[in-house]
Amino acid sequence: MSEKKNRTQVKARLPKGLRDVEAQEIRAQQQMLSKISEVYERYGFEPLDTPAFEYTDALGKFLPDTDRPNEGVFSFQDEDEQWVSLRYDLTAPLARYVSQNFDALPKPFRRFQSGFVYRNEKPGPGRFRQFMQFDADTVGTANPAADAEMCMLAADTLEALGIPRGGYVIKVSSRTLLDTLLDSAAITAPRQRLVVLRAVDKFDRLGLQGVAELLGKGRKDESGDFTSGAELSSQQADAILSLLSGTEVPADTTVRTIIELVRDGGYGEDRIRFDATVVRGLEYYTGPVLEADLTFPATDESGQAVRFGSVGGGGRYDGLVSRFRSQPVPATGFSIGVSRLYAALTHLGKLKGNAASQGPVVVLVMDKARVGDYQKMTRQLRDAGIRAEMYVGEAGMKAQMKYADKRGSPCVIIQGEDERARGEVTIKDLLEGARLSGEIAEHEEWRSARPAQFAVPASEMVEAVKRLLREQQKA
Amino acid sequence: MSEKKNRTQVKARLPKGLRDVEAQEIRAQQQMLSKISEVYERYGFEPLDTPAFEYTDALGKFLPDTDRPNEGVFSFQDEDEQWVSLRYDLTAPLARYVSQNFDALPKPFRRFQSGFVYRNEKPGPGRFRQFMQFDADTVGTANPAADAEMCMLAADTLEALGIPRGGYVIKVSSRTLLDTLLDSAAITAPRQRLVVLRAVDKFDRLGLQGVAELLGKGRKDESGDFTSGAELSSQQADAILSLLSGTEVPADTTVRTIIELVRDGGYGEDRIRFDATVVRGLEYYTGPVLEADLTFPATDESGQAVRFGSVGGGGRYDGLVSRFRSQPVPATGFSIGVSRLYAALTHLGKLKGNAASQGPVVVLVMDKARVGDYQKMTRQLRDAGIRAEMYVGEAGMKAQMKYADKRGSPCVIIQGEDERARGEVTIKDLLEGARLSGEIAEHEEWRSARPAQFAVPASEMVEAVKRLLREQQKA
Repeated sequence: MSEKKNRTQVKARLPKGLRDVEAQEIRAQQQMLSKISEVYERYGFEPLDTPAFEYTDALGKFLPDTDRPNEGVFSFQDEDEQWVSLRYDLTAPLARYVSQNFDALPKPFRRFQSGFVYRNEKPGPGRFRQFMQFDADTVGTANPAADAEMCMLAADTLEALGIPRGGYVIKVSSRTLLDTLLDSAAITAPRQRLVVLRAVDKFDRLGLQGVAELLGKGRKDESGDFTSGAELSSQQADAILSLLSGTEVPADTTVRTIIELVRDGGYGEDRIRFDATVVRGLEYYTGPVLEADLTFPATDESGQAVRFGSVGGGGRYDGLVSRFRSQPVPATGFSIGVSRLYAALTHLGKLKGNAASQGPVVVLVMDKARVGDYQKMTRQLRDAGIRAEMYVGEAGMKAQMKYADKRGSPCVIIQGEDERARGEVTIKDLLEGARLSGEIAEHEEWRSARPAQFAVPASEMVEAVKRLLREQQKA
Repeated sequence: MSEKKNRTQVKARLPKGLRDVEAQEIRAQQQMLSKISEVYERYGFEPLDTPAFEYTDALGKFLPDTDRPNEGVFSFQDEDEQWVSLRYDLTAPLARYVSQNFDALPKPFRRFQSGFVYRNEKPGPGRFRQFMQFDADTVGTANPAADAEMCMLAADTLEALGIPRGGYVIKVSSRTLLDTLLDSAAITAPRQRLVVLRAVDKFDRLGLQGVAELLGKGRKDESGDFTSGAELSSQQADAILSLLSGTEVPADTTVRTIIELVRDGGYGEDRIRFDATVVRGLEYYTGPVLEADLTFPATDESGQAVRFGSVGGGGRYDGLVSRFRSQPVPATGFSIGVSRLYAALTHLGKLKGNAASQGPVVVLVMDKARVGDYQKMTRQLRDAGIRAEMYVGEAGMKAQMKYADKRGSPCVIIQGEDERARGEVTIKDLLEGARLSGEIAEHEEWRSARPAQFAVPASEMVEAVKRLLREQQKA
């Protein structure tokens, strides 16, 4: 590839809504993703990876025949002038994959996939244009047992991630419940139905009173902005509000079957329950819908109560695959918003760092002529499974110490002329040093603390470092 | 997002050069990537993730002011009309990241990153337009110890992946060796120098004789195509050929320092050695270069000898970060071609499947009214850590058995009316069934084999399945 040849300085920057993810977050997220995978595997789902971009029409988008090809999705033309787009979710590619491989796949087809998706939308705080989703889907069956399984999967996943029972709830409802109710209440105008669904979708945030206002004349929010309502009669509104506030599962419904199945599976009210306020996407789902909510009480840095709310959701979408095929292909799925769940787990302290989250032991280069010796020490540490590096920069002792500090090193290894003459190495405990300099320790305490540095025979270096790392772990 | 509304059938297909990756490959590759990460972590490198696309100019590409923005890279305009491109490697984004965060980073900065890169090039067999790279880089030092470390890292990584010592070699050279030689042999015309470098780069494939021809008049290949040569004098050509065929490390060179350092680290000739035939990218590298070659003898399905050759490479590139900054920022790195290494490891049988690579135990639904009972059995299996699912499709017994076969299930659980009356379940061993139907077993052997199906009390189902899975593992 040809490099930019002129020497004009380029500004190092990222397009808005994109971000770099650094070590600590990568490690913690990796840990989280692997726990989710474990649960999905145990449920019998198989992993699948599809590429980052696809033909725009295969993703179910209108072809960009207007001059705004990038509305919502990022699109560009391939060399044969066909439009392609970065995937905006993992479900559209799944539909394409299933259709393309229909005859070869076991049916129902059960897959999970995690990966980045891309949205050409206005970014905001915590809203990015590249973010990760983690999906499980069962394609090719209308059986409510598949929907029930999604609910159980969601519950088991949250518990595997350390959310205690009672700290979350999986809410189940069905789009057809509301549809049927709207029909029987003679609410037939598409526009009015949409306003009603939008109102119901806001239940979480506005409560019953707020929804009631939106079903009636309308609602003025705290800022004074007015949202006009659905203008329902009070009888119509009451029918809907009573469905929303009810906890009894409507008889003879798919939701009832789902709830019975999860109860058989041993999942009580405390984990999975009917909740008619769950609507999810307005145009997408065709039957049962579910939502995973964190109810765990938490506070932010300023002591304010924090509500995490929804960290995932899904439901039945029977129309997606049939875009490609003449016969109907019913499907159901559950999708985790990885960043949101990650933020919640981090806040709850559920993502512990692993051994690698600690910086490496740094072997200082005290004498450039003896770099071979320092290399050997580094090798000995690595061979013992200890994360270690010889300082490979070109700066002096002081800068090397600063480097080790910045890397979060547990300790540095020093062998200057004196140590060498005595056949020793000095091990400097950086965590202890940091602690001592960070607090006004009482004299007593100071004396009993680990020494901030100590010498050992060179032959005992590895064992001494191991011991120190263990002590640091305990402290 | 608005769905495509009209009912025209869309063809399910992928753009050329893209592919879906299925379960077995994902699992094996995951295993490989996690082993590589382990080694890189132990060396003190930190993970980093950068987004899939960046400003085109920040990636070091010419701005597409022509009407072919997608030459080599995939580019599109952001809503503010600025050009962005999908990353074509992981080094250019690293240079952008380092420049953007220069003051905050420890120096040298050591990171590793694995991720997909995108090339808008002609795809071919085994050549895709989206593929994965796995890179380690040390940025901010010209110290040869950093280059030496890359060589050791490469060797340790291959061994961690199960390539035995002697089955690989890390070759080191330096671009400056050839440059100096070209200078001293008075080969100064840029075009002639390029022809010479290209000839050297083909050493692996053509051998000394082929390179000699390309340094002289030129070379006719087997197909009869003629490549014109560099037209060197025989004296000039001999100087180069003697460098290429020599094994002694030139004195007073960076390569000599690197070789000494890796010897100090305990790496002998059998693992890391000087090889002047290594050139790597022609325009990119500015000093030491390295290449990881698999020399492990192997044969393909037809018994032909297979040479895997290079599975990774790297070297020193001191110009990349300085595009953004006035001061020079020297850097060195090593990049693994993940697909190529994966293909080699698969061929060598080094990637064993894990527990999850086996299909799930499938609990058949013999009676739709009793789906709750089957759900409970599934739950019991999962709670015991066994990969299991209840059949969630809607087909009959025969199709369910076919489904379990297609999933690679080790066994199915059957509880029809008879079993239920006796308080039993039948466990059908699908692997044994497959074996028996796949071979003309002798009667004796047949009798001693595991029974293809057997009944156990329902309360002993979990233990019986566990026992069966253990026996299948052993077989």
